Amino acid sequence: MHDTGLRPVNQKNPIVFLSDFGLSDPYVGIVKGVIYSINPEADVIDLTHEINPQDVRQAAFILKWSQQHFPPGTIFLAVVDPGVGSSRPGIVAVYRQRLFVGPDNGIFGLFTAKKEKKYCSCFCLRQERIFKLCLKHGFRPGSSTTFHARDIFGPAAALLNLGFRPEDLGEPHDNPVSFSFPEAEVTRDGCIRGQILYFDRFGNAVTNISAGMLQKISCPGSSSPCLLVQDRDISCIPFLETYSQASDNQPFFLIDSFELVEIAVNCGSARNTLGLEVGNKVVVRCK
Amino acid sequence: MHDTGLRPVNQKNPIVFLSDFGLSDPYVGIVKGVIYSINPEADVIDLTHEINPQDVRQAAFILKWSQQHFPPGTIFLAVVDPGVGSSRPGIVAVYRQRLFVGPDNGIFGLFTAKKEKKYCSCFCLRQERIFKLCLKHGFRPGSSTTFHARDIFGPAAALLNLGFRPEDLGEPHDNPVSFSFPEAEVTRDGCIRGQILYFDRFGNAVTNISAGMLQKISCPGSSSPCLLVQDRDISCIPFLETYSQASDNQPFFLIDSFELVEIAVNCGSARNTLGLEVGNKVVVRCK
Amino acid sequence: MHDTGLRPVNQKNPIVFLSDFGLSDPYVGIVKGVIYSINPEADVIDLTHEINPQDVRQAAFILKWSQQHFPPGTIFLAVVDPGVGSSRPGIVAVYRQRLFVGPDNGIFGLFTAKKEKKYCSCFCLRQERIFKLCLKHGFRPGSSTTFHARDIFGPAAALLNLGFRPEDLGEPHDNPVSFSFPEAEVTRDGCIRGQILYFDRFGNAVTNISAGMLQKISCPGSSSPCLLVQDRDISCIPFLETYSQASDNQPFFLIDSFELVEIAVNCGSARNTLGLEVGNKVVVRCK
Repeated sequence: MHDTGLRPVNQKNPIVFLSDFGLSDPYVGIVKGVIYSINPEADVIDLTHEINPQDVRQAAFILKWSQQHFPPGTIFLAVVDPGVGSSRPGIVAVYRQRLFVGPDNGIFGLFTAKKEKKYCSCFCLRQERIFKLCLKHGFRPGSSTTFHARDIFGPAAALLNLGFRPEDLGEPHDNPVSFSFPEAEVTRDGCIRGQILYFDRFGNAVTNISAGMLQKISCPGSSSPCLLVQDRDISCIPFLETYSQASDNQPFFLIDSFELVEIAVNCGSARNTLGLEVGNKVVVRCK
Repeated sequence: MHDTGLRPVNQKNPIVFLSDFGLSDPYVGIVKGVIYSINPEADVIDLTHEINPQDVRQAAFILKWSQQHFPPGTIFLAVVDPGVGSSRPGIVAVYRQRLFVGPDNGIFGLFTAKKEKKYCSCFCLRQERIFKLCLKHGFRPGSSTTFHARDIFGPAAALLNLGFRPEDLGEPHDNPVSFSFPEAEVTRDGCIRGQILYFDRFGNAVTNISAGMLQKISCPGSSSPCLLVQDRDISCIPFLETYSQASDNQPFFLIDSFELVEIAVNCGSARNTLGLEVGNKVVVRCK
Repeated sequence: MHDTGLRPVNQKNPIVFLSDFGLSDPYVGIVKGVIYSINPEADVIDLTHEINPQDVRQAAFILKWSQQHFPPGTIFLAVVDPGVGSSRPGIVAVYRQRLFVGPDNGIFGLFTAKKEKKYCSCFCLRQERIFKLCLKHGFRPGSSTTFHARDIFGPAAALLNLGFRPEDLGEPHDNPVSFSFPEAEVTRDGCIRGQILYFDRFGNAVTNISAGMLQKISCPGSSSPCLLVQDRDISCIPFLETYSQASDNQPFFLIDSFELVEIAVNCGSARNTLGLEVGNKVVVRCK
């Protein structure tokens, strides 16, 4: 079970860093300083540091839909950590040839969930091992109870980037924190019922309805799929192929770059125009 | 016409990335993941990702005034793309030894404008060629109608960075979308008439009046140039050499780092203090 | 005095860049373009660019508490520069094996302060020397009076990164601008009196009371240290080891990752919840 099946890690593989630290404090830079102190050859790419403070599920969503676009061997350093300093362990999750380092609080919970378990192996980080390996590389990590990105997770990512294996940093871990987003479903009446998971900067509303599920409903004759938002007094929203097919300020839905159904308003914000929120229930049916 | 005159591209040249994606979503990171997947040696520098959503002209302004500060051979990846998924083509523009990749919607319109045409060659991107070249480098691009930065422009930039030429990625393109900013002019009464093009973070107002044009008006005797903003009840704003010559909260104008006339308020925001907007007409005259 | 004691600078050492430029304008990217033009091998890490406009002391605080986490030989490029274009010189400060380049306006004033002077040597930058060395490397710097990060400090950092020594760029400088933050003190009644220096993104309030000072007060019997904020009608705030020990919305104080006393509210903002401001006086006593 714990044969991670990893190819030897290429040192040129990037470390991809996600957090809720924001960019106005020096925290992100400090973690990079620690990584460069241990591995001066490291390449660190920012995924985003604007996760809503302590919103582990938002981070999990972004990791899930971003990871496939980075090369195999990529090391994701992901720290949204309301439980820092408590007994919650740190983990390395190995999922589909990528490595994920961070707190065991559900941030990798979509990879460790039952459905995905066969693609995922986890290791519990041992701080004393990381400390010793860092010392061998001439670096003495800090030991705060408040900033494990600097003192544990960043150093662990740098060591993995140097070629150490997850098993060098800890022990197999069989019960990591998992969770699933609610799944969309096709109901007996031929509708799809789902909900809004995420808003992007443009106010586009990403739902849990996949492109594959949308293809399953075939609308007869001249009818076409349209989308309703529960408890919102909005007429049924039409489906379009691209943003540019919509007239300005027109609400519509489309398949977005995550291959998910997304509600958008051309040249505007669906979130604001339609008053949407995360968790809003949506129904796609034929019209 | 389509001899681009490019020196062989040095792989160490950076890819400079500008967009309206913001930094709170994973979009910028995902594009970098794709670039690294194709060319693990790529260096990507962020120019800015805070272009106002879909504001192609703001992006064009920033590219125009930034490009000269990057080394010859630099590849600019610039994506502000309200027409994504429509029939608008993607282009590579070669301008003064730099390469510009993005949608053909005017984002490079200040380089392709008539006045600059002799310094500029354009190529229309062919998605199928980019796709094939990526496959040869072990990467399969996505094919969304909503995220061409990930699926077309990012891969094209990575391929150019690997040493492919613009002509490897597409066909010569003679009619790219162009535009010009309104030009300032010296009028018969010896005044300069221009307008505000851009505000920076500090609230400084950048105009279309160049340093060279300002030097053309010579104020007799003890008089000196001053600046009026049309339809604003503000006394004529004096000229100073540097920010530090002004007293706090004093409005003044100076030659900024773009070599353009800029209206500023020391230790404050000209935009807020004077109630300025993009497009405001300004007049410089002797006082 | 001016033997800087620097080991030969390793070109792989990063340039760490801090400013008040923000990320919405192209200024940060332009400075990086200049650095890459001079030294294509440079690695530039952003510390933060969201310093409050012209807030030299905030920048000084962040540099002071961040620098130790970067490897010896790191070059800090720090530009918060309300006096740009005036006669204030530019400097290189060498402090504890790190190099600091920027305006001589107090931004490095915590390193050049009397207490630290034995660890610090300063050099006054000579623009004409930087200009000549850049020309030798095929780059012609700009000469604005408004953007010295682009025209002087960025080029100086790139040259230091290439292996030039501070003495190659200027003359010894014995009177750099210095300042100190007010120091916390233990008073006769056994209390610690300090003040709030900084808020981070989460609204945590960082004070000038060090972990070491807190350890000096020993509370007898069952009493424990608690913290009062002067002129705030708040009951005495308890001490906890970690964020996760607090119940939601509970104010508490702890030792933070800077090894300083910090006031926090679990899952909330101490700044907003308690109405705190920089400069607020605090007292730690036994309760």
